[in-house]
Amino acid sequence: MHARVHRLGMRDPADVSGLAALIDAGEIDPAAIVAVLGKTEGNGLANDYTRGYLTQSLKLLLGEHAERPLYVFSGGTEGVLSPHYVVFSVDSTTSAGHANRGQSLGIGCARTRAMQPAEIGTLAQVSVVQAAVSEAMRRARLEASEVEFVQVKGPLDPAAKDPGKSMALSRVAGAFGVGLALGEIPAGFDERDFLQNLSIYSPRASCSSGIEVRVNEVMVLGNSAAWNGPLSIASRPMRDALDLDAVLGVLADLGIQRTPEGLARVRAAMVKGEPDASGAVRGHRHTMLTDGDMNAQRHIRGALGGLVGGVLGDGRIFVSGGAEHQGPPGGGLIAVIAESAS
Amino acid sequence: MHARVHRLGMRDPADVSGLAALIDAGEIDPAAIVAVLGKTEGNGLANDYTRGYLTQSLKLLLGEHAERPLYVFSGGTEGVLSPHYVVFSVDSTTSAGHANRGQSLGIGCARTRAMQPAEIGTLAQVSVVQAAVSEAMRRARLEASEVEFVQVKGPLDPAAKDPGKSMALSRVAGAFGVGLALGEIPAGFDERDFLQNLSIYSPRASCSSGIEVRVNEVMVLGNSAAWNGPLSIASRPMRDALDLDAVLGVLADLGIQRTPEGLARVRAAMVKGEPDASGAVRGHRHTMLTDGDMNAQRHIRGALGGLVGGVLGDGRIFVSGGAEHQGPPGGGLIAVIAESAS
Amino acid sequence: MHARVHRLGMRDPADVSGLAALIDAGEIDPAAIVAVLGKTEGNGLANDYTRGYLTQSLKLLLGEHAERPLYVFSGGTEGVLSPHYVVFSVDSTTSAGHANRGQSLGIGCARTRAMQPAEIGTLAQVSVVQAAVSEAMRRARLEASEVEFVQVKGPLDPAAKDPGKSMALSRVAGAFGVGLALGEIPAGFDERDFLQNLSIYSPRASCSSGIEVRVNEVMVLGNSAAWNGPLSIASRPMRDALDLDAVLGVLADLGIQRTPEGLARVRAAMVKGEPDASGAVRGHRHTMLTDGDMNAQRHIRGALGGLVGGVLGDGRIFVSGGAEHQGPPGGGLIAVIAESAS
Amino acid sequence: MHARVHRLGMRDPADVSGLAALIDAGEIDPAAIVAVLGKTEGNGLANDYTRGYLTQSLKLLLGEHAERPLYVFSGGTEGVLSPHYVVFSVDSTTSAGHANRGQSLGIGCARTRAMQPAEIGTLAQVSVVQAAVSEAMRRARLEASEVEFVQVKGPLDPAAKDPGKSMALSRVAGAFGVGLALGEIPAGFDERDFLQNLSIYSPRASCSSGIEVRVNEVMVLGNSAAWNGPLSIASRPMRDALDLDAVLGVLADLGIQRTPEGLARVRAAMVKGEPDASGAVRGHRHTMLTDGDMNAQRHIRGALGGLVGGVLGDGRIFVSGGAEHQGPPGGGLIAVIAESAS
Repeated sequence: MHARVHRLGMRDPADVSGLAALIDAGEIDPAAIVAVLGKTEGNGLANDYTRGYLTQSLKLLLGEHAERPLYVFSGGTEGVLSPHYVVFSVDSTTSAGHANRGQSLGIGCARTRAMQPAEIGTLAQVSVVQAAVSEAMRRARLEASEVEFVQVKGPLDPAAKDPGKSMALSRVAGAFGVGLALGEIPAGFDERDFLQNLSIYSPRASCSSGIEVRVNEVMVLGNSAAWNGPLSIASRPMRDALDLDAVLGVLADLGIQRTPEGLARVRAAMVKGEPDASGAVRGHRHTMLTDGDMNAQRHIRGALGGLVGGVLGDGRIFVSGGAEHQGPPGGGLIAVIAESAS
Repeated sequence: MHARVHRLGMRDPADVSGLAALIDAGEIDPAAIVAVLGKTEGNGLANDYTRGYLTQSLKLLLGEHAERPLYVFSGGTEGVLSPHYVVFSVDSTTSAGHANRGQSLGIGCARTRAMQPAEIGTLAQVSVVQAAVSEAMRRARLEASEVEFVQVKGPLDPAAKDPGKSMALSRVAGAFGVGLALGEIPAGFDERDFLQNLSIYSPRASCSSGIEVRVNEVMVLGNSAAWNGPLSIASRPMRDALDLDAVLGVLADLGIQRTPEGLARVRAAMVKGEPDASGAVRGHRHTMLTDGDMNAQRHIRGALGGLVGGVLGDGRIFVSGGAEHQGPPGGGLIAVIAESAS
Repeated sequence: MHARVHRLGMRDPADVSGLAALIDAGEIDPAAIVAVLGKTEGNGLANDYTRGYLTQSLKLLLGEHAERPLYVFSGGTEGVLSPHYVVFSVDSTTSAGHANRGQSLGIGCARTRAMQPAEIGTLAQVSVVQAAVSEAMRRARLEASEVEFVQVKGPLDPAAKDPGKSMALSRVAGAFGVGLALGEIPAGFDERDFLQNLSIYSPRASCSSGIEVRVNEVMVLGNSAAWNGPLSIASRPMRDALDLDAVLGVLADLGIQRTPEGLARVRAAMVKGEPDASGAVRGHRHTMLTDGDMNAQRHIRGALGGLVGGVLGDGRIFVSGGAEHQGPPGGGLIAVIAESAS
Repeated sequence: MHARVHRLGMRDPADVSGLAALIDAGEIDPAAIVAVLGKTEGNGLANDYTRGYLTQSLKLLLGEHAERPLYVFSGGTEGVLSPHYVVFSVDSTTSAGHANRGQSLGIGCARTRAMQPAEIGTLAQVSVVQAAVSEAMRRARLEASEVEFVQVKGPLDPAAKDPGKSMALSRVAGAFGVGLALGEIPAGFDERDFLQNLSIYSPRASCSSGIEVRVNEVMVLGNSAAWNGPLSIASRPMRDALDLDAVLGVLADLGIQRTPEGLARVRAAMVKGEPDASGAVRGHRHTMLTDGDMNAQRHIRGALGGLVGGVLGDGRIFVSGGAEHQGPPGGGLIAVIAESAS
């Protein structure tokens, strides 16, 4: 059993020609696709419909195989970020490629039941996300210590007075659910901790929310001897939006030199971050939270894209804002999937 | 004779309390100030009045000394960028500090006559900028080969149908003027090359434009044995918005390690860049030029701020978009002023 | 033969439940739909994908009947404007309702061939649009003097350096094509008149452009004794964005009092306008063209929506910016479809 | 004693040349200026510095007379709105002009003490605003029943996590203070009613907030036999953003026909409104509250400017968003100052 990862560009949110070509060429088996993760070129906020548009376009392409995969899209390709999607599929055969250190990338997915609007951002959502993460780990035969990255996509309350707040609370409930399932966050918290007690966090949770889903969707990625193939994943928390060392560190974890050959081994990169709520980064005032023209999420995605894109030499990065309780406050996390050196 | 550089934060575009305090403390002689360069928190576009507001506020503070300095402000503190201004002053005494390699930072400034609206973006503007750069070099006793960075702030045509175009053309004329003065751009071009023949550029020109000036203002920075003191400057072209190597290279030029102690030597950083006009960065599509909600300049500043801020660990960077003919197409340049290691 | 018009709201750009319900109820025959005109909640600019998303969603609903209708959507529901779509269908039977003055609303549609990117905004586009308008009139048995409103949706050049400019030129070519077909614009113009000689215009042309079409789509609306049924249409040019008299005048043309009963007769309203290129409206400076944060089209749509929405008491208005050569310079036009008084 | 009102345009937020010319010509006595009310071309949100820039520019012009006037500026000139300021001055002589119905426009102003950040949006702010309104009425010899319009400009908490919320709460406290002083809002409410119990409102309160003030500034306008001169004021609540009848009604109150001669009598217009919190206007969904690209205040100002500008034929209207508890929920109010027919 091995995981396969293909990263594909888009001309627009309805352009799924890249995947169509790979399916036509026999490169990707549509029945084997378990998740598609991507960045679309909307604003990434409540009225961003590019996520739903890409989802609908992919489902039209996949036809009878449309219902299995998770579709996890984050809007907003600010700055050097490039619209793209990453197709994760699982091949039940043994891969010819060799893994790093005897462990290979493994993938597990799960979905929760549909949330009622009143459940968004509550302990009820935490609980179902926790169960789904555990189920995804079980399916992937991944121990908590082997997990490097958990992506959650949750719903928002479309009738909320403040849609941005509803989106944030959905992400928070996802992060607590992941943290519980991975044993990073001990029980004993309650809803008053949400968005308040930021010392509680999961350094491996990446949560998004959007109007196009009613359920929570979960994808767990880790390295395990139960999987084979040439891919592996590494992740690190980012202490703030300037944390170049975390980016360089995750490359080091994967044994990648910052040369063209080394960087060509990268198959996907996922970054989560947020504008520091204190209004300053390393002591210097930022204006992300007081800009009435440009949303704070657009600010932080653009900055993180510039930093990580500069290191990797590639703007095809899943950079997602809204890192509440996902990594340290004012920071976030980075995960990179790469092929082993040949 | 030695140059002094102070970098100060702001609460808002009218907050000049940092400079007021240094003047009160006798740290800065207001009569010695030759230029103030800064980032204000507007949108950096035609209707950004934060630049003019800071200028008016500084002039109110400086009173009888208000007319001498150049005021060169660029709007837009996207992402991790921090509103700040850098005060350049010239002390006619010999500094106790020691320069790198026997050469120290030198500064020269000059102004052109007022431009007529019809002259913006023409050879007439090129010619007066060229003369002003030469005059500034003469005043600073800097040879062309010693110059590392030239800042030009030019006017725009307020009646232009497309103010963004007018701003761009003013920057272009500035860049050609610098390139002529430094011998980087040979004579023989004409106005049809503007915004078209992007292989013509100055790798040391940084040009801004704004509604708050009628004249072109020029500041030349370089290293020379004619100056002393502990400061020096280095610059490099950036080949694109992902050019981490250029950023690391300019630190290497200054002998700075990326440690807290090393980075603490940085006194100011200036970056110029632009969204790649091809619509892609290193082969991957970007969306900076087709985003109807967020101007391309805001996109590129945020990305460059993320990259350079991450390397320097500090968001107080003069990042300015609009790098037409300033550095390679799709790229730009970086300059850093630092203190010598003690 | 009579025309039917249904105006339906949307929860989001993929929400076609209103039309689905009417089809299920037998109210609308999907095979009889000739056009859908609507406002979606994107930004209405080059990167607005809500238009394509709604189109894709409608086509999924209409299935085998998906290819016949024109889909003409304009993005941007600023201010009081409400996302909605208007379904035009043609019933070959005689309606029981009675027309105003013996004439009833008639509809004709046509499409051109696909445009090459280099043809956008050229005389080639003008020519094919002219032919399509004539063809649509012929199909609808409408004389030029009976036409009240012509909608054109044209493509843009996705590779254009300035997508806004490409969108504008596509609208311009559409307007000239309409004006030629209706005899409003005499032959003899050339491409240098485009966006320059604004005294040439059609007071009945409404042109949009978007990345989701390759061909030009044309819908002609007028009143004719060849049609029956209770609907009729009236239109007026608007001399500027403050032209309340034009709005009141078109109601008067339809015999509608501004009472709840009178206004309940309105079935659809279409408005076209633009920011006055002089930078002022009736002598007072506006800021629509110099706002770097909010596109001029968003400004003008919001203003026109406020004016016309206030008169009609309803925000479901097809307000479209970009009225170059469509109505007087700085102005535009308004068309209203209403039911006869019973 | 009579009130004088001059309405002046601006080229930019630092352009006070209109007032300078009137002072130079002896038309306006700078010592007699009691208030300046205006619209500047920022975004009207927390990071809008055009208000402060205009204030600073006016104070520089007025010199020794700078401290007396209230400076009440609202940012945001969306759509047809035109940047302008209205200078209110009080002449102690008897005017030659004749008032409507024996009553003329009267003006009273007052200021509160500086607010602590923690007091913003609390009963403490309500109480000081109430006292200031009463004091302004006393100074103007206006009874509560004679008051037509009260403008309050209050501070916000610059350290608030959500600056938009802090701005709203400051407006709310102002509205309750006005309502108490005018006897429109009975005592007995508490802070839990703020932004919740919207049936409590003042139909004559217009409240703004901005980072440029620390105190609350109050201006009361009404008609009284204690004043003479040709000016008078009328106001009406607006039930929603489509309330054309309210706009026409206030003209009727002033005896103004919608002819060029009639409309030329208008000296100033003030409008307050808000996006309907239900998400719909007269039953049709609007998108003002879910637009991540364009703030809801920008949406509503543009719509109201379009409606009122269309009726008055002039975009120089003080349209201010944020009408919480100022007029009916989802609506607001309009006030117009006009000269008597000669």
